[in-house]
Amino acid sequence: MQLKISKEVLKEGLLKVNAVVTSKATIPILTGILLHATKEEVILIGSDGTETVKHCLPVDGEVVDVVEEGAAVVPSRFLTIVKKLNKEINIFHDDSNMKIKSGKSLFELNCMDATEYPKFVEFNLDEPCLTMSSSEFKGIIQKTSFSASKAETRPILTGVHFKLGDKITVSATDSHRLSQISCDKELSGDLEVVIPAKTVEGLLKVIESDDVCMYLDKHQVMYKTGATFYSSRVLDGNYPEISRLIPNGEDFNTVVEMNKSELLQSLELASIASEKNGVVKLELKENAAILSSNEETSKSNVEITLSSMEGKELIISFNASYMIEALKSMDTEEVTVSFNNDQRPFILHPSDIDEYNEIQLILPVRTY
Amino acid sequence: MQLKISKEVLKEGLLKVNAVVTSKATIPILTGILLHATKEEVILIGSDGTETVKHCLPVDGEVVDVVEEGAAVVPSRFLTIVKKLNKEINIFHDDSNMKIKSGKSLFELNCMDATEYPKFVEFNLDEPCLTMSSSEFKGIIQKTSFSASKAETRPILTGVHFKLGDKITVSATDSHRLSQISCDKELSGDLEVVIPAKTVEGLLKVIESDDVCMYLDKHQVMYKTGATFYSSRVLDGNYPEISRLIPNGEDFNTVVEMNKSELLQSLELASIASEKNGVVKLELKENAAILSSNEETSKSNVEITLSSMEGKELIISFNASYMIEALKSMDTEEVTVSFNNDQRPFILHPSDIDEYNEIQLILPVRTY
Repeated sequence: MQLKISKEVLKEGLLKVNAVVTSKATIPILTGILLHATKEEVILIGSDGTETVKHCLPVDGEVVDVVEEGAAVVPSRFLTIVKKLNKEINIFHDDSNMKIKSGKSLFELNCMDATEYPKFVEFNLDEPCLTMSSSEFKGIIQKTSFSASKAETRPILTGVHFKLGDKITVSATDSHRLSQISCDKELSGDLEVVIPAKTVEGLLKVIESDDVCMYLDKHQVMYKTGATFYSSRVLDGNYPEISRLIPNGEDFNTVVEMNKSELLQSLELASIASEKNGVVKLELKENAAILSSNEETSKSNVEITLSSMEGKELIISFNASYMIEALKSMDTEEVTVSFNNDQRPFILHPSDIDEYNEIQLILPVRTY
Repeated sequence: MQLKISKEVLKEGLLKVNAVVTSKATIPILTGILLHATKEEVILIGSDGTETVKHCLPVDGEVVDVVEEGAAVVPSRFLTIVKKLNKEINIFHDDSNMKIKSGKSLFELNCMDATEYPKFVEFNLDEPCLTMSSSEFKGIIQKTSFSASKAETRPILTGVHFKLGDKITVSATDSHRLSQISCDKELSGDLEVVIPAKTVEGLLKVIESDDVCMYLDKHQVMYKTGATFYSSRVLDGNYPEISRLIPNGEDFNTVVEMNKSELLQSLELASIASEKNGVVKLELKENAAILSSNEETSKSNVEITLSSMEGKELIISFNASYMIEALKSMDTEEVTVSFNNDQRPFILHPSDIDEYNEIQLILPVRTY
């Protein structure tokens, strides 16, 4: 293998694929990065065994030029070297030895055998099951994935549930709270899949300004964004039937509208005095709301202005961090919170959006 | 105690004294911050048992106003609350209970008994043993303290040595390298003290734009900078006689001048291939220098341009990180490196400064 490549282009590509590489990989070869040069493109691949990122740099004879095809698995130190080098980098590879030349510097690195590197999953790129703009895709993930479970007790809940039919519904829940986004989209067929939250969040880091295409088979999901491909296993098992958890409009006995920033700041303040369990109490009276918490050594009491209130007065306790995360995911100034009673889940949604297109549901905490 | 205080002023003061506070303090009361209000000033004190920071906020009736004198030790949560509050904060303290009121928020905190908080060391503020501008003081510390030992095997070497006489000489060494700064200064008397590197580095974080005054007794050192006082124990024991380690001008057989930035970049590059021990080899020939390293799985070779060279050719090995840290401490474009032979310490100094006013000395590594 022999190639000439711009430092910036190689560095950007390596950073993308290196995002999933770990020194703790179970197979030693996965601690390195696959560098594969053909006459058409230079391909970089990094993987931790379950998630894999591939990035392609097209050969243009200027920024990227391949003199001789070949492949090698370079140790992670390769990226450290590239970061510090000058504008143009020349790479010569022969057997297990790689020479990297740039300006007045010359490096020699031992490489691993590229034939031992796992194959990258192949999909028919003309047939994505879903295509979205990158901003639309980012929005969906940022409004849902934080609600996925961090615990492995029910592995299926560590994923984000995609349901494609006459519309797209994306959900995540850890059984204490639930996030769900629905949007209209023309799709070829019905489909349901649970993708690890880690995968969709990892994807956010490498996403480019182009569209995001999603490809699926029974075991694997792959996303394509620009020249980057991100693949992962999908989660096995049935996702819980969550639609019945979401209350209907007629169930609501108390509906309030509040300024999102003020509510967010008040929650952060009130929960300082609730370091142990993070639970705060919300008291809703006619046009006045009070957030409070009470621990052995500290108490807090914060008033909030209500923009509007309909229905009964209410006292309810919940985990402040769940509401803080839900509010932070919303692009809105006003937020509507709809309650049934102090025992049943309540929902938040941006006041300017139909409540069932963007739901943040939170279960209250019983404090008696 | 009852006082009214601006959020920003209180927050800035608390951040300064909190810098030394640790939740792992051996005495429980030190996990908190002492808040002491008199008619003249509000005093904040934080300590980890060996280092103590005191910050004074003068009462002006506007930004700081004390209605009723008093003192309490507040838990660290107090700072978290203050950070999130509004512009004006009202504090009411009675027995062990403190109420903090600001805007629509009210907090109650349990406090500890201020009479149990250790006394702050007192010095006669009119008699500093040394006064310097803050920038001069910062420079001295940043050019020396990094060479102090990180290991506790010889505790005295974890300190920075101040020698005050007809001039000031400040030194630090970990026995593999040595940094020494000398500057002329009118002083009242001869004095020698070893101050923990941790203390002078901690001081850098709270230093204000005013002068820095230093006060000393047998066991304690205190620095005053603006309204902040930083005190610490001094290190017991005799500092090694380091002057005989520094070679004389006639000892030098090879003297080269190099561009500092190029040398720094080349050292960082060459040492990538020397991850295990960090040792690089420098080869000096007539008007050419080569830095290289060689490990089992990687090699590097980086050429450097010499601005000038006098004396014999030389091959010498040393720890790259020692030279990198030494170079980073220098405010200069050109650096002069003077060698005796490959077994003896060599020195670096900014080319535009007299070599014995700012010395960075490094011991070579024997590689045979």
